[in-house]
Amino acid sequence: MTTDPNTLLNDMFRAAVTSALPAACVPAHLPEPPKGRTVVVGAGKAAASMAKAVEDHWKGPLSGLVVTRYGHNVPCERIEVVEASHPVPDAAGEEAARRILELVGTLGSDDLLLCLISGGGSALMALPAAGLTMADKQAVNKALLKSGASITEMNCVRKHLSAIKGGRLAVATKARVVSLVISDVPGDDPSVIASGPTVPDPTSFADALAIIDKYGIEAPESVMRHLTEGRDETPKPGDPRLSDARMVMIATPQMALEAAAEVARKAGYEPVILGNALEGESREVAMVHAGIARQVVEHNQPGRAPCVLLSGGETTVTVRGKGRGGRNAEFLLALTVALDGLPRVHALAADTDGIDGTEDNAGCITGPDTLARAAAAGIDAKACLRNNDGYSFFAGVGGLVTTGPTLTNVNDFRALLIEAP
Amino acid sequence: MTTDPNTLLNDMFRAAVTSALPAACVPAHLPEPPKGRTVVVGAGKAAASMAKAVEDHWKGPLSGLVVTRYGHNVPCERIEVVEASHPVPDAAGEEAARRILELVGTLGSDDLLLCLISGGGSALMALPAAGLTMADKQAVNKALLKSGASITEMNCVRKHLSAIKGGRLAVATKARVVSLVISDVPGDDPSVIASGPTVPDPTSFADALAIIDKYGIEAPESVMRHLTEGRDETPKPGDPRLSDARMVMIATPQMALEAAAEVARKAGYEPVILGNALEGESREVAMVHAGIARQVVEHNQPGRAPCVLLSGGETTVTVRGKGRGGRNAEFLLALTVALDGLPRVHALAADTDGIDGTEDNAGCITGPDTLARAAAAGIDAKACLRNNDGYSFFAGVGGLVTTGPTLTNVNDFRALLIEAP
Repeated sequence: MTTDPNTLLNDMFRAAVTSALPAACVPAHLPEPPKGRTVVVGAGKAAASMAKAVEDHWKGPLSGLVVTRYGHNVPCERIEVVEASHPVPDAAGEEAARRILELVGTLGSDDLLLCLISGGGSALMALPAAGLTMADKQAVNKALLKSGASITEMNCVRKHLSAIKGGRLAVATKARVVSLVISDVPGDDPSVIASGPTVPDPTSFADALAIIDKYGIEAPESVMRHLTEGRDETPKPGDPRLSDARMVMIATPQMALEAAAEVARKAGYEPVILGNALEGESREVAMVHAGIARQVVEHNQPGRAPCVLLSGGETTVTVRGKGRGGRNAEFLLALTVALDGLPRVHALAADTDGIDGTEDNAGCITGPDTLARAAAAGIDAKACLRNNDGYSFFAGVGGLVTTGPTLTNVNDFRALLIEAP
Repeated sequence: MTTDPNTLLNDMFRAAVTSALPAACVPAHLPEPPKGRTVVVGAGKAAASMAKAVEDHWKGPLSGLVVTRYGHNVPCERIEVVEASHPVPDAAGEEAARRILELVGTLGSDDLLLCLISGGGSALMALPAAGLTMADKQAVNKALLKSGASITEMNCVRKHLSAIKGGRLAVATKARVVSLVISDVPGDDPSVIASGPTVPDPTSFADALAIIDKYGIEAPESVMRHLTEGRDETPKPGDPRLSDARMVMIATPQMALEAAAEVARKAGYEPVILGNALEGESREVAMVHAGIARQVVEHNQPGRAPCVLLSGGETTVTVRGKGRGGRNAEFLLALTVALDGLPRVHALAADTDGIDGTEDNAGCITGPDTLARAAAAGIDAKACLRNNDGYSFFAGVGGLVTTGPTLTNVNDFRALLIEAP
């Protein structure tokens, strides 16, 4: 039995996405209903679809409020869904965050607070600490982004300007807290995803001040006062208020790759997972992937053909041209050029959220004859690559992969399939 | 028994280089002496050290002439060694090429012509076809380099402007031809290494003209006439004059990686060869390597720790700063920054020719404590990386790897060692 490479690539991508769909990954992780009330809160691009999955499978009464991105709504019956702005926060998200904090404050020790956390939650559920404004926070944020500070450093500062991040949501309630988390960050660090509203924070006001100082951030007067006064510190690891809180990773980039690997294995292909969090400039990351695929073709390393190389993570595109397409189109076009028609190698790259950049495709698919088909259609692959025009290239050769928004996100999915000789 | 990671990394690099040293790889591949004379010719950065290895092990009379790069000489007794310019050809190389062609023309069918080919041979043994000048060839070369033509296309044109490339050396003699080749090119294509002076050429004058036309190359009048007249075509695959010619790859990037892999295996580390010809911008290639190492640490994929990730090939550096260091220093500094002190991961990157760029080191070595040691010494890793200053960084932390010129070249060597948990 021979599997068509394109079919297998699409099946693997579908398996990766499916593993992260709330309908698939939420039900098995729902806790036992409490003696008291159950309240659902949450934030992130998958918040509404997670809420829907809870509603569909929860036995017993339920209410709550979640915030998702504009356009990512899924109608729920018992849980209110609010839409807000991402990546730049807006008043809708701030108001929702305030209401969520109030809501969890009404719960008692017999109650259950179910938190649904996914990527984007930090911006969607932004709430400045008392005495600060959203404008204050954003000024610091902007300066941090330009400063060269690491993500860890930026998060430390953010958590100390927020009323809800860094475990503050969890300590605002007396209820038992269970967080279900869909990760889109390298390493799946729960204190990073949506800035960890229910997770202890090892960093302090003093750390935040040191970072402001280290990078010479010109912070507003109110921010400096807030950090210096250092009232209402985030809960630290070991804080008894969080001793009962549970955190479950229900979907991660690694789980998605493992789901794809299982599809490959069943089809008789050796899966080789290179990494679930590969980063770098898309076209350069593509050249490395091409080199590894060539090594499989020529030396059966690091896997024996038939074989599938899998990787996740988020590449970046330095835009120099005026073309269309997201980072997966860019990756796959660069890969196609680098492979230069190498026989036996097919590949798919797509965003598991279903949207590659700002286009209508999730990603693209390529094979040994793609360059020839492009040439026949009068499409110059190298010129498209120079112009960051991956979308047009794959549209022209019939290589777009389209799913529509999946309402979940475990980052990018890349698969290179190398047929047997 | 625990092996020190630094020792093991250095042992692997030494094994990789040793596998490619002419003293190690030439003797086993020497053919039987002929009834008649034995003449040695050759060109490349390893030509003199290859000639010396032949002299040291050849039973019987011997003479010959090889061309190597300035500074790459090794004193020989019976084989004359000429030094010439690389990568831009000079009159010394042209004169040597002319003498080599004359010399091989004096041989008869009982004689043996031993050709010693290594990287750089194309420039070192450049000889324009009759009616053309070196200036003509260089004008076309320059235009090709700017045109966006592929290496394959450039080689096609070059072979049709040469008196010696593309198999012409081999058809200029009646002797039996045996070529010993050290490869520094991706895919080890013998028609690419030193432009394949003893290997049939599948391309034609018509192909060369089509390429000139395709890229709108403004070639000198004499070149256009030469290509259009199309006299003295290169020998094609199947040409009876080459039916007796033998070509032996005696050292390649893959063999070097396999030699390192064997050292790893003996030390109890699983070797994972990612690719022998990985290309791309050094710092981006480093980010991908860092991501794969992290995957080993977190998920024992694509190899189970203790494990060594190996790769070869030549990365590139887009110079933006004013610092010092070659592509391996740049790779390793970017890797160090990307790993951010990740425990259990050590790495070495070096050029097998013993010279990383234009400095005195072959490469560098790094480990989990390198960033901390740099910080303690007041060295800012990220600032060094922005300034392309890998050499200064590793000089400052005592991480330079120095071998001196090895007089061979199988491209870059990279090893990431991940200790057991």
